[in-house]
Amino acid sequence: MRYKFAFIGFGNVARALARLFLRKQDSLKAQGIAFSVTGISTGKHGFAVNPDGLDILKALELVESGQSIASLSVVPVVNSLEVIQKSAADAMFENTPVNTQSGQPALDHIRAALNLGMHAITANKGPVVHGYRELTALAKSKGRQFRFESTVLGGAPVFSVFRQTFPLAELFSVKGIFNATTNIILSRMENGESYEDAVKYCQSVGVAEADPTNDVDGWDAAIKVAALVTVLMGVPMTPQQVNPTGIRGITSEMIAKAKAEGKRYKLVCSAEKVGDKVEASVAPQLVDSSSPLYGMMNSSTGITFRTDVVPDYSIVLSERPGMQGGPVETAYGLFADFVSAVNGDFSASEVR
Amino acid sequence: MRYKFAFIGFGNVARALARLFLRKQDSLKAQGIAFSVTGISTGKHGFAVNPDGLDILKALELVESGQSIASLSVVPVVNSLEVIQKSAADAMFENTPVNTQSGQPALDHIRAALNLGMHAITANKGPVVHGYRELTALAKSKGRQFRFESTVLGGAPVFSVFRQTFPLAELFSVKGIFNATTNIILSRMENGESYEDAVKYCQSVGVAEADPTNDVDGWDAAIKVAALVTVLMGVPMTPQQVNPTGIRGITSEMIAKAKAEGKRYKLVCSAEKVGDKVEASVAPQLVDSSSPLYGMMNSSTGITFRTDVVPDYSIVLSERPGMQGGPVETAYGLFADFVSAVNGDFSASEVR
Repeated sequence: MRYKFAFIGFGNVARALARLFLRKQDSLKAQGIAFSVTGISTGKHGFAVNPDGLDILKALELVESGQSIASLSVVPVVNSLEVIQKSAADAMFENTPVNTQSGQPALDHIRAALNLGMHAITANKGPVVHGYRELTALAKSKGRQFRFESTVLGGAPVFSVFRQTFPLAELFSVKGIFNATTNIILSRMENGESYEDAVKYCQSVGVAEADPTNDVDGWDAAIKVAALVTVLMGVPMTPQQVNPTGIRGITSEMIAKAKAEGKRYKLVCSAEKVGDKVEASVAPQLVDSSSPLYGMMNSSTGITFRTDVVPDYSIVLSERPGMQGGPVETAYGLFADFVSAVNGDFSASEVR
Repeated sequence: MRYKFAFIGFGNVARALARLFLRKQDSLKAQGIAFSVTGISTGKHGFAVNPDGLDILKALELVESGQSIASLSVVPVVNSLEVIQKSAADAMFENTPVNTQSGQPALDHIRAALNLGMHAITANKGPVVHGYRELTALAKSKGRQFRFESTVLGGAPVFSVFRQTFPLAELFSVKGIFNATTNIILSRMENGESYEDAVKYCQSVGVAEADPTNDVDGWDAAIKVAALVTVLMGVPMTPQQVNPTGIRGITSEMIAKAKAEGKRYKLVCSAEKVGDKVEASVAPQLVDSSSPLYGMMNSSTGITFRTDVVPDYSIVLSERPGMQGGPVETAYGLFADFVSAVNGDFSASEVR
């Protein structure tokens, strides 16, 4: 079957996803899956729709050389919702910037796509924490899926591991390191670099933004905790409720003292079921070598599931050499979501 | 729907599985799943079949007090194949002792069950390395499944993680610590215990047999490597081809010297694709703190997948407190296999 795609948001991640689909087209074909991209919406480089399929390489080239893609369009389109409607797509990939407060405009894009009978797949944490139940129910009513594997561990399987491979397990807690930027900063400070220089390094390699607040004050980690709690523990939670503490209060002196004692500061994310409630937190904690978090240095991240069925089960993603992998990894989560959605792995989209 | 079960082999793992089904019966019911056990075959306590369902608690009690279950049978049965046939089961759980050389009699039990239209689920590594392709093809032809999640990491999801949550990923290598017993021995030797005393400890807590050859010479690890290669890399392999080196050559002096250098000996399992071939090994290796294996102490085990899509992805199972969890964990893998099989997660049983 040939699937039509709409890309809403065409930044680093979405473009890496387009390239990944091209790279994997032979193995997709072996599974009976062909594709074309019928709609693209960009932040700064215009909109394009062609029901017969856009020239993907040309679109990548135009955007990456700073030009508009409007010339590729055979239909007049002026905004993302029009692209969704006129693309007649089977799957919509939502990759607009995260809005922690409201989840918009991603929430509206996903609603529109699901209402039109498309699978809605996103790397955007906003609609997960602000619309998980509504969007999952809407998807189910349309026989489609709302999937978001790339929202927590950069495209590596996390949600699908718990939802597809731990049937009927009870989840007591999750704990881990979810934000790579702060882990890089703390790792570099342990090697003697100042906080300011470590932040500058992260900005220079593109893992921190000009305003690093979202990372260093714990908001990126908090929205990931909120997403995990909302989806895997069935308790709606916002990042504001997680109320994170970031790493600005951790001084070089504190880190040196910890190191001398064989310990490390980590920005620890955790959520634990206590009765019907969930206690969630994001805060710097001292860990020693007995903790699975101790060995996660630099861009390494990971999560530990505590359940009623097996000993603590941790997923650890190793350091990314050179930090260039980010968008490519995230793209794989979106790709995997699409393949699972069309394979009908519906269990993964059930509200627990 | 009500599913009928046959338990072929009724040792620690199978009995833990029976108890797990009883413990989870409410959450199974919520998914529309009810069950009864219509056949049980034991090694030393006889055979029983009742098409209307055996009294599970009574069977557990009889076996655990050293009595025969034959009194529970309403049908004359004298061996495992008769139990399979006369149980009219929907799922057969094969948990007879592992036979590394031939995979028998488990192989025959699984063939019989699949031919009768049952799902065949096992914690037995023998039939995986000696019959994976045949049994998977047979299962497919019958619209049933051959599943074996419990064969590598003690019931924690490994096969299903790669097969269900990494669609179309290319697997370059697997590496890890797959045998808990040798890891406990090496950990205890690092704390100054002699090899002989460490082996005795493992025997006293039931993790090593009277003849520890299977663990300490690397055969248990080798058959796990062979199973992973056979299933996930699509290259049939036997433990003999892995040709393991065990830990008997590692002396207390070597371990002390390594410790002084910040290193540890681990019984490292690995398999790497090299062209169309796979190079596999099990052998003691020195690892330092930069290795994800370094922190796995005592009964902790784990595996790292290297793929084309995300950074190295490790699954780590923490130490089992008190070592009492073994059969219960393994039982969960069998339980998860059953739930996934009846949910129709067929992707997991496809030959890659």
